[in-house]
Amino acid sequence: MSGFVRALAHAWEKNDSLLCVGLDPEIERFPPHIAAAASPIFQFNKAVIDATHDLVCAYKPQFAHYAAYEAEDQLERTIDYVHRTYPAIPVILDGKRGDVGNTAERYAIEAFERYAADAVTVNPYLGGDSLEPFLRHADKGVIILCRTSNPGARDLQDLEVGGRRLYHVVAELAATRWNTRGNCALVVGATYPRELAEVRRLVGDMPLLLPGVGAQGGDVAQAVQNGQDGRGTGLLVSSSRAILYGGPGAGGADFAAAARTAALTLRDQINASRAGRRPA
Amino acid sequence: MSGFVRALAHAWEKNDSLLCVGLDPEIERFPPHIAAAASPIFQFNKAVIDATHDLVCAYKPQFAHYAAYEAEDQLERTIDYVHRTYPAIPVILDGKRGDVGNTAERYAIEAFERYAADAVTVNPYLGGDSLEPFLRHADKGVIILCRTSNPGARDLQDLEVGGRRLYHVVAELAATRWNTRGNCALVVGATYPRELAEVRRLVGDMPLLLPGVGAQGGDVAQAVQNGQDGRGTGLLVSSSRAILYGGPGAGGADFAAAARTAALTLRDQINASRAGRRPA
Repeated sequence: MSGFVRALAHAWEKNDSLLCVGLDPEIERFPPHIAAAASPIFQFNKAVIDATHDLVCAYKPQFAHYAAYEAEDQLERTIDYVHRTYPAIPVILDGKRGDVGNTAERYAIEAFERYAADAVTVNPYLGGDSLEPFLRHADKGVIILCRTSNPGARDLQDLEVGGRRLYHVVAELAATRWNTRGNCALVVGATYPRELAEVRRLVGDMPLLLPGVGAQGGDVAQAVQNGQDGRGTGLLVSSSRAILYGGPGAGGADFAAAARTAALTLRDQINASRAGRRPA
Repeated sequence: MSGFVRALAHAWEKNDSLLCVGLDPEIERFPPHIAAAASPIFQFNKAVIDATHDLVCAYKPQFAHYAAYEAEDQLERTIDYVHRTYPAIPVILDGKRGDVGNTAERYAIEAFERYAADAVTVNPYLGGDSLEPFLRHADKGVIILCRTSNPGARDLQDLEVGGRRLYHVVAELAATRWNTRGNCALVVGATYPRELAEVRRLVGDMPLLLPGVGAQGGDVAQAVQNGQDGRGTGLLVSSSRAILYGGPGAGGADFAAAARTAALTLRDQINASRAGRRPA
C-alpha cells in the first residue's frame, strides 16, 4: 500500500470522513474583500482549508482553475499550506495528465516535485507505458480516469469491447497490471451509480474518487452505497462548487463558515449511507 | 475551414514544408552559455525559431517541459515571439488536455487566451462534451489524440469495438460529429504507418499531426506516403529532440545552425516522399 493510500485511510478514520473538497477557484464568486486582496486564491483557499480540515479526507485543487488565472504560485502555496498546517490530509493535484513516456516524466516532476502533491489524476487513453512514469513514484497516488461523470463519457468509455465496456477494461487493467505498487485509484462519476457498483466489483478495495455529487446532480446515498468497499470506506466523494460557493452565506464575509456548514452537511450525509453505521 | 487550418495550409505552401518543430526544452542539453543566461528556455527557443522559421509549417511547445521548470512565463514569451515575428507560422500548445465541461472551459482559456495558442492538443477519453469548450473557438485548432506513437497505445486504442478499433471510432467521431466547424485535426503516431493509412481513409483531408519520427524511430517516407492527403499535404510531421539536440553541433555555440541543418534535412526528406514531387 502506498504512502498516499495509507494517508488516505488514516484521514478517513481520523476525520470520520469520505469527503474530498475540490479547491477550484472562481474569483468572481469570491467575497469582494478576498477578491480584492493580494493572492486572492491562496487567501480564499487558506480560509476554506482552516474551516474544513477536520471534516475532509483530502483536498483536490483542479489545475485548470489556477492556470486560467496564471496562478501557479498560488497553487504551490495552497498545497504547501496544507502540508505544513494539516500534514495528515493528502492533496490530490487534479490535472488529468496523459502523454508518452518521456513527457509523462515531466508531468510527474510537475506534480510530485514542483507542487509536491500526494496524488495526481491521469488519463488512461495512451496506455500503461504513459502511466508508468507516475506509477513508479510508489509513495504517490495515481488516480486514473475510468468512468467519468459527464454525459459524453458514453462516447468512448461505454463502448462494448469483447462483451465488456471500455471502462471495465480500464478498471481491470488498473487492478491487474497497473497497481503492482498498490498506489492506484480510479475516477468514477457519482452520477452513474450502476457503473460505480460494477467498478467496485472489479477492483476490490482500490480507492475510488467520485466527482459529480452536488452541482452535477449525483445522488449521494446511492453513490456511497454502490461505491464503498467492504469496510464502508474506499471512497473520496469529491465536491467543489457546492462546498466553496453553495452554502448559505457563501460569497459574503462568512464564506469560510458557509463552506464549513456545507462540508459538515455533506460529510454527515455521506456517513449516513456508509455500511455499519447507525442511521443519523 | 478554421483560421488555424487556413494558416496551416498557407504555411505548408509558403515554406514548402510539412515539418512541425516541437519546442521541448531540456536545459541540461542546452549550450552552457544559454543554460547560464537569464530566461534560458526563451533564449534557446528564440534562436531555434529564428534559425528555422522558413522551414516549418508550425511550432509545437509541449506544456510539461515548461511546467516542470516552473517556466510558464517563458512559454508565454515563446508563443508571443512567434506571433509577433513570424505571424504566418501557427503555434500548437501540446497539453493533451481533457476534463469535464466547466473545467475544459478553463483549459480553453489557458490555451487560447493566456497563451494565445492557435491550436491545442486534447484527449478524447471524456467524449464530445469535454471537447466542445475547445471546439467552439471556431478559429482555433483542436488536435485530438487518435492513435498515439507509444507502444502502450495498444492497451486501449487498438481494442476491438464492433469490428473496428477504438482509434477508428475516434477518427470517425472527429470526422462526423466533432468537426462541424472545420477546426479538428488528429494525432496519429508516425511509428504505426498502417494505422496512419487507415485514419487517412476515414477522415478525408483533415490535418494529421504525426509525432514519432526521429527519436521514436518512425520511418519518414512511409509515414508521409501513408498519411498525406490527395494534394500531398495534410500533415504536420512533428520532431522535437532530433531537431533541437540531434544535429551536428547541437549543444555547442552553433546550436541554432545545427537545428537549422537538422530541420532542413528532415523537411527535404519529407518532401521527397510527397505525392506529385520529382525525386530529390
